[in-house]
Amino acid sequence: MRDVAVLGVGQTKFGELWDRSFREIGIEAGLQALVDAKLSSSDLDGLYLGNMASGSLIDQEHIAPLILDYAGLARRHLPGVRVEGGGASGSLALHQGYLAVASGVYDYVVVGGAEKLTDVPDEQATAITGATADHEWEAVFGATLPALWALVARRHMHLYGTTREQLAQVAVHDHQMGSKNPNAHFRNKLTLEQVLGAGPIAEPLGMLDCAPFSDGAAAVVLGPLETAREHTDTPIRIAASEVACDTMALQHRAELTRLNGTVAAARAAFARARRSPRDVGVAEIHDAYTISALVSLEDLGFVEKGRAGPEFATGQFSGGGSLTVNPSGGLKAQGRPFGAVGVAQVAEIVRQLRGDAKDRQVPHPTLGLAHDVGGTGATSVVHLLERAN
Amino acid sequence: MRDVAVLGVGQTKFGELWDRSFREIGIEAGLQALVDAKLSSSDLDGLYLGNMASGSLIDQEHIAPLILDYAGLARRHLPGVRVEGGGASGSLALHQGYLAVASGVYDYVVVGGAEKLTDVPDEQATAITGATADHEWEAVFGATLPALWALVARRHMHLYGTTREQLAQVAVHDHQMGSKNPNAHFRNKLTLEQVLGAGPIAEPLGMLDCAPFSDGAAAVVLGPLETAREHTDTPIRIAASEVACDTMALQHRAELTRLNGTVAAARAAFARARRSPRDVGVAEIHDAYTISALVSLEDLGFVEKGRAGPEFATGQFSGGGSLTVNPSGGLKAQGRPFGAVGVAQVAEIVRQLRGDAKDRQVPHPTLGLAHDVGGTGATSVVHLLERAN
Repeated sequence: MRDVAVLGVGQTKFGELWDRSFREIGIEAGLQALVDAKLSSSDLDGLYLGNMASGSLIDQEHIAPLILDYAGLARRHLPGVRVEGGGASGSLALHQGYLAVASGVYDYVVVGGAEKLTDVPDEQATAITGATADHEWEAVFGATLPALWALVARRHMHLYGTTREQLAQVAVHDHQMGSKNPNAHFRNKLTLEQVLGAGPIAEPLGMLDCAPFSDGAAAVVLGPLETAREHTDTPIRIAASEVACDTMALQHRAELTRLNGTVAAARAAFARARRSPRDVGVAEIHDAYTISALVSLEDLGFVEKGRAGPEFATGQFSGGGSLTVNPSGGLKAQGRPFGAVGVAQVAEIVRQLRGDAKDRQVPHPTLGLAHDVGGTGATSVVHLLERAN
Repeated sequence: MRDVAVLGVGQTKFGELWDRSFREIGIEAGLQALVDAKLSSSDLDGLYLGNMASGSLIDQEHIAPLILDYAGLARRHLPGVRVEGGGASGSLALHQGYLAVASGVYDYVVVGGAEKLTDVPDEQATAITGATADHEWEAVFGATLPALWALVARRHMHLYGTTREQLAQVAVHDHQMGSKNPNAHFRNKLTLEQVLGAGPIAEPLGMLDCAPFSDGAAAVVLGPLETAREHTDTPIRIAASEVACDTMALQHRAELTRLNGTVAAARAAFARARRSPRDVGVAEIHDAYTISALVSLEDLGFVEKGRAGPEFATGQFSGGGSLTVNPSGGLKAQGRPFGAVGVAQVAEIVRQLRGDAKDRQVPHPTLGLAHDVGGTGATSVVHLLERAN
């Protein structure tokens, strides 16, 4: 297999984009990434598009050819493929793009992620996103994603003494980071008191422990590393791209507080890249709920199981430590357009490794990690990215 | 890249499977394919699952980990990825499995396709399948897939003198073929009079010009060709796997009667395999509507544009000629569980090339073709398969 590099990145603002359609935001992100990669559409060999639920959300399936068509590429008859894995759809699409280039069958592909969540009422979006949990064993009984993650939080508090304040600290961190991100859904800072005082969603999780429903799109251009310097002075190599699944239903796991898929994907990724968690200088991790960020930090190998609450509260992941987490603001502040998340995470890691992240630049990271989760962890995806020298 | 072989195939009966759930049929097909490949689940490296619209049809997204989980594989934490491209979802999943093995990153993958269409009322299934056309330019105005294909039929009749009887001949052929297929949704034979006398769906297409909504699943196991003989005496090599897109909306094409994506995918496939349409002994082609089969025969290069009606009516594709079409009964008779179709087509070609097709065996084919279409041709996929010597 060939080494694969990220040559360009693009992203729309995340938020309530009521003035723009799915196809418009998909194309905006893709064109930005192409321009960033100094490629024209005539260089492209294909499109992978990560999306969770366009059929339910905008009555449109078959969206990869749709985006190619409205980008003016129908006459080139490129391959276009939609990839779905709940909230991890974007990074699954990236995995497919990586394999396509690694195989040698494709040279240059755009990997996009896009979702339009705010065109339906919140209760409908809650039901649709809940379809990424196990319908027959969870959703049909009324379980929603926040309700399921609340179970994880309660269990984590019970087993490890994690406190409500430690959970809330994640949201404070994310909004602090997101305040410097012009693409973020929310740029307001939060105090601990605000998070603790917000109305309950599924106790112990309150409104400000939960990432929002967002619209948005992100894209990256992938190509062979060997020719990457024709396109960019700072090609970013994909050192590992690993996907691992787990049970759909939370109740079928031996332990609620461990994302077994994340443990497996992270181990595989570090082994493939011959690196360790200590080498990672910047990470975008899954923080759809404040508890998700804590268990993710543990299961990715950054802190010992059960210790994420107090470790996070020290502020070591907010800059100044050896690892900075979610400089974009994460899902909580940058926003959560489900299928776009995984691609946006990788785009942020690429900016950070290039030194292009402006106000939110982490000092000199050499290895970055992106971690994406679908449902309550039935899919986990870990990407490791590094500056190619 | 490595050469990729099909090592095993599996398939459920297609039809109204009201006694079995989505997860059950998915697992049945996958296990059959594993047994056929003489592999155990511990040999597997991943799952690709083609599916059009599980979110709308069974309120369940995120179905690749679902199938892995209920197949007892959750603890292996394998990668599982759903792929969607309307009615071409199954063959797009196959394309991904092909790239995964070709890249060397994966050795053995199951590619499944599954759809549960008959658990919702027909009018709802019509709307959901219509979401594979362009929502904003077609579906929102009431256009359905049969209505759009009826436009293609009218235009083909106008331009080339194709007759209503020639269209009907496709359905007669398919049911004749399907009568020998124990997995077929319909095994009854049809007369020309029955097809012509059936109630109208979208004129000139009647009820018996249209493939049914079906439930069903199919699966194949892929692996590297170099070790294929450890698993089977008759490994089938994937000589080409090509995907090509076109405009979403029919009205945006220069010519309604040409599937430009099919033309592009077929040309690319024959070029990659260094073969020509004349070398193909058996083909499973897209016959969701009788007109689809005629334009597909033309656009794949088997007959001259405009000549498919009279050529098909000679009976040359029904056995005895150099090319036999849709020995499975095609979408019309074997059935149309959208996301499963492309995988089932390839499974049938594999059986035919192995000489395993029993009553419906085509004599000694050496090269087979599978052709899958999403929407009205926004996605086309062509696979060429051959016996490996």
